[in-house]
Amino acid sequence: VTQDAVVEGVDFRREWTTPYLLGRRSLALSLSDLAAMGATPGFCVVTLCAPGDTSLADVEALHEGLQAMAAEHGCPVVGGDVSAIHGPIVLDVVAGGTVESKRALRRDAGRVGDLLVVTGVLGRAAAGLRLLRGDGGDRAPTADVAGVWKGAQLDPVPRLAEGSAFAGAGVRCAGDVSDGLLVDARRTADAGGCGAELWRDALPVDVALSDVFGDDWVGLAIGGGEDFELLAAVAPDAVDALRDGWPADLAPLTVVGRLVEESGVRLLDCAGGTELALPPVASRHFGS
Amino acid sequence: VTQDAVVEGVDFRREWTTPYLLGRRSLALSLSDLAAMGATPGFCVVTLCAPGDTSLADVEALHEGLQAMAAEHGCPVVGGDVSAIHGPIVLDVVAGGTVESKRALRRDAGRVGDLLVVTGVLGRAAAGLRLLRGDGGDRAPTADVAGVWKGAQLDPVPRLAEGSAFAGAGVRCAGDVSDGLLVDARRTADAGGCGAELWRDALPVDVALSDVFGDDWVGLAIGGGEDFELLAAVAPDAVDALRDGWPADLAPLTVVGRLVEESGVRLLDCAGGTELALPPVASRHFGS
Repeated sequence: VTQDAVVEGVDFRREWTTPYLLGRRSLALSLSDLAAMGATPGFCVVTLCAPGDTSLADVEALHEGLQAMAAEHGCPVVGGDVSAIHGPIVLDVVAGGTVESKRALRRDAGRVGDLLVVTGVLGRAAAGLRLLRGDGGDRAPTADVAGVWKGAQLDPVPRLAEGSAFAGAGVRCAGDVSDGLLVDARRTADAGGCGAELWRDALPVDVALSDVFGDDWVGLAIGGGEDFELLAAVAPDAVDALRDGWPADLAPLTVVGRLVEESGVRLLDCAGGTELALPPVASRHFGS
Repeated sequence: VTQDAVVEGVDFRREWTTPYLLGRRSLALSLSDLAAMGATPGFCVVTLCAPGDTSLADVEALHEGLQAMAAEHGCPVVGGDVSAIHGPIVLDVVAGGTVESKRALRRDAGRVGDLLVVTGVLGRAAAGLRLLRGDGGDRAPTADVAGVWKGAQLDPVPRLAEGSAFAGAGVRCAGDVSDGLLVDARRTADAGGCGAELWRDALPVDVALSDVFGDDWVGLAIGGGEDFELLAAVAPDAVDALRDGWPADLAPLTVVGRLVEESGVRLLDCAGGTELALPPVASRHFGS
């Protein structure tokens, strides 16, 4: 069971998104938590706190978005609560799922020497947030690229199939990359009682990221959040088999670093390479 | 699984309660929903949205209150979320429980002719709210009575044992009296495709209620909410056995009316008696 609240002015701004996408996203966040455990979704319940002047059409659109995400992932909305609020919109989603006994992925199951593996592409959601904020880079991205990045921010895909595939392949340690790889690799390392190194040149990013944002690309890729990819720690001798058995229709796997003895997170240019300065961690919250 | 949100300024006012009691009450509301299904609590998860200036001591007290209620009813807090908010405090609780197959109490299982049975005493929480609002009655209650009434409003007891006893005794239809007997009897009647009559002289109330509030006592007893007693509909020939087998340490049962063919809810002075005007339904929300 997992719970995730999204709060207007903190987690989203009404003018950047639509009620439909907000509904989709609020459930996607909880589904991402289930994915990070390798769980199969079973049900969800949703509380909506909305000010009295919220239009019925907006509430209906929000509900449609929720229902669409729920239907896509077999996670029926079985109940919830609606309340007035003299303040911002709050959407709180609880999702429950099941995982085979002893197959649950855990944040704390990583060990020194494990390789760090991520699904998909990093930095798109953070880049999308920059574009939504009107804080573009050195040059404008193409409309296609801008659409993908904003979509990654506003309508993320929970990596449920990938989480199940990790669990099915015997991976023990995973989490989702909700706060950026720097923060989430640190969480994995801390939980495993060790440290982590990340390899810049191995990061899976869009080439457009450095075209548009120059040297900021590293910060967007590992210091930004909300990509909702998965980060697993996998024993080195198990990585090849994991890759070989990885279904072609899932988000691809990339080895981006490894767990090491010394605590904390370090960034190197590549495996065995030179240590680099850490980029700033972008706040994922608009309010802070 | 049930979900209940409490929102500052709508469901509570900070100056009337304490963080500790707020924590207790927020879980009690969800436990009352489980009680109304005859369920045994299993777990809960809690989201707290609090403005940045909330003191750590207040958050800790709130958590202590939650934990105390959770411990009293065997409903461990297994997770949750914490978020900033530029607005009021929001506490959203989801509780999950189990009920024996086909023993779950349902709001829609009432039938014409069933007697309406409530647990405990009605009107205390509404009277407590009047006192908290400084909107006292014709004369002041004793300090003891005032304490009981405010306690009923601020620290309600979920009727879990009573719900289990209903389910165990073969009762099929129940709900909790969260919005007052008028509203909740109407819900039960509507769900069963029938109507309801309530008998004023049978209502279980404190004698002090009419001493303090005069003729307003009926409105407080059935038009006020938040007593979180249970309302069951029971076949007439099953009521005696239910009463005989009712454990002495549970909130006592009172027959307060019955389900009838004609839709809607009517108030009579007694069974077979004269119809009376309905009292106003007190809003349970401070904001509306």
